Amino acid sequence: MPPGFRYSGVSCGIKPSGKPDLALIVADQPVVAAGVYTRNQVVAAPVVVSQRRTPSTSIRAVVTNSGNANACTGEQGMQDAIAMGDQVAELLGCSAQDVLIMSTGIIGKHLPMDCVQRGIDAAHRELAPTHDSFLDAAEAILTTDKDRKTVVHRMELGERSFQIAAMAKGAGMIAPNMATMLSVILTDAPLTPESAGVLLQRAADSSFNRVSVDGHTSTNDTLLLLSSGHSSGSGAPLEGQELETFQQELTTTAIELAKKLVADGEGASHVMAIRIHGAQDEASAEAIARSVAASPLVKTAVTGGDPNWGRIVSAAGNAPAQITPRKTTLEICGTTIFRDGCPIAYDESALSKKMKASAEVAIVLKVGDGPGAVEYWASDLTTDYVEFNSEYTT
Amino acid sequence: MPPGFRYSGVSCGIKPSGKPDLALIVADQPVVAAGVYTRNQVVAAPVVVSQRRTPSTSIRAVVTNSGNANACTGEQGMQDAIAMGDQVAELLGCSAQDVLIMSTGIIGKHLPMDCVQRGIDAAHRELAPTHDSFLDAAEAILTTDKDRKTVVHRMELGERSFQIAAMAKGAGMIAPNMATMLSVILTDAPLTPESAGVLLQRAADSSFNRVSVDGHTSTNDTLLLLSSGHSSGSGAPLEGQELETFQQELTTTAIELAKKLVADGEGASHVMAIRIHGAQDEASAEAIARSVAASPLVKTAVTGGDPNWGRIVSAAGNAPAQITPRKTTLEICGTTIFRDGCPIAYDESALSKKMKASAEVAIVLKVGDGPGAVEYWASDLTTDYVEFNSEYTT
Repeated sequence: MPPGFRYSGVSCGIKPSGKPDLALIVADQPVVAAGVYTRNQVVAAPVVVSQRRTPSTSIRAVVTNSGNANACTGEQGMQDAIAMGDQVAELLGCSAQDVLIMSTGIIGKHLPMDCVQRGIDAAHRELAPTHDSFLDAAEAILTTDKDRKTVVHRMELGERSFQIAAMAKGAGMIAPNMATMLSVILTDAPLTPESAGVLLQRAADSSFNRVSVDGHTSTNDTLLLLSSGHSSGSGAPLEGQELETFQQELTTTAIELAKKLVADGEGASHVMAIRIHGAQDEASAEAIARSVAASPLVKTAVTGGDPNWGRIVSAAGNAPAQITPRKTTLEICGTTIFRDGCPIAYDESALSKKMKASAEVAIVLKVGDGPGAVEYWASDLTTDYVEFNSEYTT
Repeated sequence: MPPGFRYSGVSCGIKPSGKPDLALIVADQPVVAAGVYTRNQVVAAPVVVSQRRTPSTSIRAVVTNSGNANACTGEQGMQDAIAMGDQVAELLGCSAQDVLIMSTGIIGKHLPMDCVQRGIDAAHRELAPTHDSFLDAAEAILTTDKDRKTVVHRMELGERSFQIAAMAKGAGMIAPNMATMLSVILTDAPLTPESAGVLLQRAADSSFNRVSVDGHTSTNDTLLLLSSGHSSGSGAPLEGQELETFQQELTTTAIELAKKLVADGEGASHVMAIRIHGAQDEASAEAIARSVAASPLVKTAVTGGDPNWGRIVSAAGNAPAQITPRKTTLEICGTTIFRDGCPIAYDESALSKKMKASAEVAIVLKVGDGPGAVEYWASDLTTDYVEFNSEYTT
């Protein structure tokens, strides 16, 4: 685990199920922090508060509750979010400005602050720098997720070595009342707040911003990067090639977490791994990937193991980015089924079997001769998804 | 029926089911015609051909086959589309330029031209100006639709009276291989090709462009307006206030057809009638409506009769258009459940019952104080949709 952090996760009664619902991450010394937040115009109170407090060079804690999103809760919601941070600040003897807050769960209900207060006290008592405590925290941020989502990496940078420990939650941004995407990435690699912000945005753009279950961005989405490097004696801030290498590690970590979200997407039976290339530029490639990923016709074809090139090619044709139909070629699970704008002969039944058996269905679409390429991940669409989301009642 | 048109619909063997699959509409004299076509970049051959031939003052026929979309069929597909028109032109003794072509059905397969040729001959023999023949044509353009979709209106314009007879097909743009939206609107109201084009685009923008089942625009979508007015002796072209009145009739007709598409959307159990008001302008209101209409979380909430304001408000917050959360108010089936950014008390169980019992669920969302307003119609999302589209195999 990266030195300089302690963790805990406890049950404090926000969730009727009694499952863990309050997580605390504490930095022993002030750390550098950057954040990336939801672009939804309806923004939850904890997001408003955390957004004001990053970037920072003096963050001491991240407190997260699950079971209640503290969203659409008006002025009371803002006071509650601030009070969560104030209580942590008092326990740590730091400024309120140095505590970040995240919430996820039901929206439109006020936080049960008595539970939250007891939870913060208990979580503070249980803080420990161990992997087990890290897992406790990762457990306490979940809502409808089937499993904890964590990634721990070690990287060598010249003579120095650093750790990355990351957690995320989110059943694909699709659960009732919008399961939020939350993620915290911790490292001891020394970063300036400026580089932390740039690195995190870049990593998000290639990972969490390239996954989709239903395209419904939550009111609470939050991604945080905390670096204890400058306080834990790991040397001068990274720069130049070191930063590039760290960027790669960070992006890889974020992609691993993002793919875990998609794989855990409500009712998902397959992950669609969509690779677009030959687009005019990267933004075009991403728009095309998003159009393919969002099409219910494509999603249901993947659910049914149907190599339906017509749905995929026409979804690409619907994107707000240029494709060249006569230069369009499609490969599914390694088999080319459409080349330069024309369908070609292949063994449909063999490919269908392969699609059904693959947890990850690779869709590779060339849309022209341009340099633009991206990878994008999405869940398929099953009757389980519809049942879950239509039978749930607020 | 508007004078000057004859109709027929026959079975010619394109559909394995033996159902009617070739429709012919013939104008006794050259008529004014305008078209609105798919914006998909993957464009079927018949769309390419028809698009080149409109607007026009000399159209004599629209020939349509169902069962095969003639899309993604390369050079051969272009030749086949042109041959369909050529055959009709020869039978009528007119120029090939004066025949419009539409196709809908499976994509990526060449048209069985022997069937098509026999079908055109048979359809030509059966042409008649009757309502029954009009219904035969309306039947022959269907694919996975449950029912024919027709609208016949009569309008008074000062001392003159005119007819509008319109047909459409499309199980909500969502059936296997993308059931296409096709529609032909016939009238004897005298129009110039310029005004026909403007009227039709306006009507489309308020109707077919404001419905959604899955947002997957087909490669073949075509909407045609044919006016026999200048050749059937119904007087001078409409202008000024007359044109405005005709625009209203035309838009009403198009909206009726568009709502029939949504109601027949694959697996649909409810139509969501979404009204957005208070947006910055009409384009903003439409973007917000589209975001609400496209959200699987909103769709499944409607399927389940769940007055889940959080999903609707946050879908609006995701739109690429400004909303003012603290001035946002939501009403479902006449009950206000969220006002000025705050949830309010209401009888959940009564409202849920009402939603379940309503074929059309009215969602009225005020997003601020602006003048922008639209109406938008969408289907909900059911397990039937997923089963149908995932169990179908090309």
